[in-house]
Amino acid sequence: MEERKIVAEVSVVPLGTGSASVSEYVAACIDAVSRRKNISYRLNPMGTVLEGPLEEIMEAVKEMHEVPFSKGAMRVVTTLKIDDRRDKPLTMQGKLDRVKKIKPDVKI
Amino acid sequence: MEERKIVAEVSVVPLGTGSASVSEYVAACIDAVSRRKNISYRLNPMGTVLEGPLEEIMEAVKEMHEVPFSKGAMRVVTTLKIDDRRDKPLTMQGKLDRVKKIKPDVKI
Amino acid sequence: MEERKIVAEVSVVPLGTGSASVSEYVAACIDAVSRRKNISYRLNPMGTVLEGPLEEIMEAVKEMHEVPFSKGAMRVVTTLKIDDRRDKPLTMQGKLDRVKKIKPDVKI
Amino acid sequence: MEERKIVAEVSVVPLGTGSASVSEYVAACIDAVSRRKNISYRLNPMGTVLEGPLEEIMEAVKEMHEVPFSKGAMRVVTTLKIDDRRDKPLTMQGKLDRVKKIKPDVKI
Repeated sequence: MEERKIVAEVSVVPLGTGSASVSEYVAACIDAVSRRKNISYRLNPMGTVLEGPLEEIMEAVKEMHEVPFSKGAMRVVTTLKIDDRRDKPLTMQGKLDRVKKIKPDVKI
Repeated sequence: MEERKIVAEVSVVPLGTGSASVSEYVAACIDAVSRRKNISYRLNPMGTVLEGPLEEIMEAVKEMHEVPFSKGAMRVVTTLKIDDRRDKPLTMQGKLDRVKKIKPDVKI
Repeated sequence: MEERKIVAEVSVVPLGTGSASVSEYVAACIDAVSRRKNISYRLNPMGTVLEGPLEEIMEAVKEMHEVPFSKGAMRVVTTLKIDDRRDKPLTMQGKLDRVKKIKPDVKI
Repeated sequence: MEERKIVAEVSVVPLGTGSASVSEYVAACIDAVSRRKNISYRLNPMGTVLEGPLEEIMEAVKEMHEVPFSKGAMRVVTTLKIDDRRDKPLTMQGKLDRVKKIKPDVKI
């Protein structure tokens, strides 16, 4: 039996690093999550969208949250938004498809 | 002279609609923002990323926030995250490119 | 006639300042919003809750977003969540009171 | 030895309930978190601020996220923001105190 999946978005931001750039931290966070077999992800310009079982998503978020500390950051602000629907299966692609069905020219 | 641009993500959610589906509202919000000449957008499974001048992004968000009310919703929760960098130009594509340069196999 | 009010929460975070502390920026943002006659605010440990007309809240957020730049920051991430209910009046105190009615020992 | 603490804010919102009111769900979520000995909380009009060890905060958020489902909701959107500082102790009160020191008349 396949486990129920949720869709979530996570953003991990280090504070006080001395540089306005965060791409190095983002790449390392993606590195961590991409090693998980049960989680799919897609990077967008404002965060990373995740799809997988709730329990493992929470584990992945804790792991991503540690990444900037392991690279020397003193303070990290991590934001997570969970979308969990239990009346029908929820996937990243399914959510996009439902909007596309109504508005076929939507830019994705 | 080209105006300074910001990158933002917006999510507009109606509460108490009687249905767990929100795709109809998302499509109508996209419809509103896609008519603006100075704003680029990309839909992702958790929100809509916008690129354009701060002032016009704020106008677009106010317009998107009204959409569910115009369709009968009684309560709307709108979330906006603004990323504004002034030491170098900031674009949706540029943010992705900087991560891709470090991690070429990142899924976008 | 009194204008319809919304309740919102805003958080303004400077990146790359070289210090993990943000209290100086928070105090200056509060300073800006506290000068507005039509907006009430309350600071909590994770953000500032605002109450007032939607249009003026948006103006205040733009003003708060500028504060860290005026103090030398190169990049600012501002998060805004708007709660707008139109079937009945919405206030900061009213929202708390409705929870307190159900759970009288709630800590506020 | 005392465990390191983080400060976080959580918001749990059910979709498609047929009612624009959420106070009943908020009260039940507070009920869940208030039973945890290692977590302090404060409700504000836009969310609940938590203080405690990261691991247990994550457990509490998972528990709060289940509350609306147990009351019949079909879809729940949960938002979590974690503030984790490791160069000095971080507490709800300490964060407020640092702002108050700079701006003594701040409304809390």
